[in-house]
Amino acid sequence: MENKLSKWDFKNGNIKEKSLLSIRPALKTIMENLKEEEEEGSKPLIHLGRGDPSSIPCFRTSPVTEDAIFSAVRSAKFNGYPPAVGLPSTRRSIAEYLSHDLPHQLSPDDIFLTAGANQAIEVVTAVLARPGANILLPKPGYPFYEARAACSNVEVRHFDLLPEKSWEVDLESVKALVDDHTIAIVIINPGNPCGNVFTSEHLQEIAETAKKLGILVIADEVYSHLCFGSKPFVPMGVFGSITPILTLGSISKRWIIPGWRLGWIAMVDPSGVLEKSGKK
Amino acid sequence: MENKLSKWDFKNGNIKEKSLLSIRPALKTIMENLKEEEEEGSKPLIHLGRGDPSSIPCFRTSPVTEDAIFSAVRSAKFNGYPPAVGLPSTRRSIAEYLSHDLPHQLSPDDIFLTAGANQAIEVVTAVLARPGANILLPKPGYPFYEARAACSNVEVRHFDLLPEKSWEVDLESVKALVDDHTIAIVIINPGNPCGNVFTSEHLQEIAETAKKLGILVIADEVYSHLCFGSKPFVPMGVFGSITPILTLGSISKRWIIPGWRLGWIAMVDPSGVLEKSGKK
Repeated sequence: MENKLSKWDFKNGNIKEKSLLSIRPALKTIMENLKEEEEEGSKPLIHLGRGDPSSIPCFRTSPVTEDAIFSAVRSAKFNGYPPAVGLPSTRRSIAEYLSHDLPHQLSPDDIFLTAGANQAIEVVTAVLARPGANILLPKPGYPFYEARAACSNVEVRHFDLLPEKSWEVDLESVKALVDDHTIAIVIINPGNPCGNVFTSEHLQEIAETAKKLGILVIADEVYSHLCFGSKPFVPMGVFGSITPILTLGSISKRWIIPGWRLGWIAMVDPSGVLEKSGKK
Repeated sequence: MENKLSKWDFKNGNIKEKSLLSIRPALKTIMENLKEEEEEGSKPLIHLGRGDPSSIPCFRTSPVTEDAIFSAVRSAKFNGYPPAVGLPSTRRSIAEYLSHDLPHQLSPDDIFLTAGANQAIEVVTAVLARPGANILLPKPGYPFYEARAACSNVEVRHFDLLPEKSWEVDLESVKALVDDHTIAIVIINPGNPCGNVFTSEHLQEIAETAKKLGILVIADEVYSHLCFGSKPFVPMGVFGSITPILTLGSISKRWIIPGWRLGWIAMVDPSGVLEKSGKK
């Protein structure tokens, strides 16, 4: 057996370094250390890293969502393989929901269902990837983007969010990073992890900068409508006629059911730029 | 706008050729052509390409599965993010279920939950991928393996299934294909698309060949226990002490709920070869 073992050579795989880009191991380490401190009675523990409201008993999803599951299961109409892009009725509902806040109407064909917004990140990165490509990610941001870029061999370039300007995008640093191989800029609004909400004016500036630079905007809006403070949430898609937007969203946070894994990619491109350039 | 469009260069992406490796577009084309023929009244249509039993009304899942969903939703205990590898109770149940047919007991730690067996294929391919790697796939087989290998930049090498020997693996062709960069051989049993069921003796031959060649066996058993004819289904894991097996499975077919997307990877490696070689 020993001489056989020498043939088992799995150590050159590079999945381990990619998994280090997930936020979970870091969070786990922090939590474990905090637990130890708590046991020593040194400090009370207030958990501020809440990405999952469903773990708090007072936040329970509406009976509407539960009844939707009950009736779908009872009907036995949804047990089979759905179309890879999602059921037509679901795509239509999401198109209508998102269009409420947009100056134009999305079509069901603009919506692609995913297993949570994480898979939306995975799909968008894989679809846009090409040899030598790079993507612009916010710093600080959501590390799953870095992980998926690594898996799709896309180079990551970070632009700064400016704490002194309510974590707005440093558009000058964006301009300095872009080259002909830049495929997209990722905007997370409301912000993760900073919790900021971008003004409509700032979103328009981002769209206009992206247009000048000829890059797509990936708008991560999984925390849409979960805003505290005076600034209302404005979807990036409002500026979809300036530059094409891929909006990523999910029902996780607003309906308090992140474990149900229902997310989407919405293509907000009323001028048809993506279709004209051969991507649709 | 026109001069901007020249910057939108998405045509070098290679996702389109990969999506051609899915069986669905081919099936769709065939079905569309068949429909036309049917309209002309030339031939009656008998659909033999049934991958989804739930589309046939007489095949309905058991009340047991429906009640499991109802009580999980009502409990509100499963609305949050589960561990990435699956809930401990689910992993324990699957380990016990699979162990019924094995000469040794699987641990919950040997089980990794996936969104259907397709994601199991995706995860296994991504985890095993490394620069210059190749994987051995059956011909004929299930084209999603080719698609995921392409996405993970793993070279595909096909070995033959022998129609004159009940679609058994041509082990001589396997030996001729292997080199130091071969990461695994994929065995689909019961066979997809041929519907054959391997004998216990043939599975043992495959395991011994894999051991000699120092490669992993990926055993795709999504159709396990759905056998017609006289040959009983024997899991590849029975021979896990000869060579490490990654068994891929799901509840899709046996419970007639493929759309529920619950699959798994079971690591069947009682000798601990994978752990010793640094992969676990």
